[in-house]
Amino acid sequence: MSERKGLLVVNTGDGKGKSTAAFGMALRAWGHGYRICVIQFMKTEKGRWGERKAAEKLGIEWHTTGDGFTWMSKNLDETAARAEHGWGIAEEKIASDRYDLIVLDEFTYPLKFGWLDTETVLAWIEENRPARLHLVVTGRDAPDRLLEKADLATEMKMVKHPFESGVMGQQGVEF
Amino acid sequence: MSERKGLLVVNTGDGKGKSTAAFGMALRAWGHGYRICVIQFMKTEKGRWGERKAAEKLGIEWHTTGDGFTWMSKNLDETAARAEHGWGIAEEKIASDRYDLIVLDEFTYPLKFGWLDTETVLAWIEENRPARLHLVVTGRDAPDRLLEKADLATEMKMVKHPFESGVMGQQGVEF
Repeated sequence: MSERKGLLVVNTGDGKGKSTAAFGMALRAWGHGYRICVIQFMKTEKGRWGERKAAEKLGIEWHTTGDGFTWMSKNLDETAARAEHGWGIAEEKIASDRYDLIVLDEFTYPLKFGWLDTETVLAWIEENRPARLHLVVTGRDAPDRLLEKADLATEMKMVKHPFESGVMGQQGVEF
Repeated sequence: MSERKGLLVVNTGDGKGKSTAAFGMALRAWGHGYRICVIQFMKTEKGRWGERKAAEKLGIEWHTTGDGFTWMSKNLDETAARAEHGWGIAEEKIASDRYDLIVLDEFTYPLKFGWLDTETVLAWIEENRPARLHLVVTGRDAPDRLLEKADLATEMKMVKHPFESGVMGQQGVEF
């Protein structure tokens, strides 16, 4: 049997489902007995605690980094420093070769805002990623260079959103 | 506190992540303590066994229906009959008011191929869906009428696919 080739997967776009599909992949991978690690780069308002609780139950490793979306942050330097700290964790986990699937959730933002240098990150991944490791990156506005390097990229496009029709975000459904 | 309003969510498009995002929603909803039911309308080649194993572990109810994609089926009448059988299960589960989230996986196909009448199905849902139930429909080519009725619709659009670059489908990642 040939060695499994790990894929670099990118879920991007302005629609729903980027992170959710990544967590769905983690769920499937868990069912296959894979070792999984999720690193969450931006602190979302709701903290993804539904997913985190499920991950805990399943024994999926989960790390949070970041201090909330920058455009609300008073302290850009700290935000950038936290992105670097998060990437440090990611580097360690990726290089460890202890996982089959690693999700870098909302990882496009540190690249997009320049807290991390996209070329440096991509070169590091190319050099250090174990060949069989699946790496999933989520977030809007994925840099072109990341898409070029991706094996599988999907754009989640909003067709219709409940806020349009005045329905509030619903626990368990909204992000 | 106001009554939660259930959303009709549609994940469609030619890209990856339609069902995966629905399972990710189920994972999050599970973390919130919701009662969940998945009804799988088309039998996929790999049977979604990764997801099913995870669902079993989490206590998420899971039903399979269908006899494989029709365009491979020798017996269209049986396929249609099975779609009707699946819809019968869905009707029972939806009307029971025992769930917070129901996923109708690949449910666009019975509508698209006319095994079920879209107007009849939508009218039945409008009449019988408990107000707080989230209903998630996945599959390509969602009928326009379904999209009209949806509260939240996302198109998963393929940007880049590994088959383009000659990489085979990978267990744990591919559908």
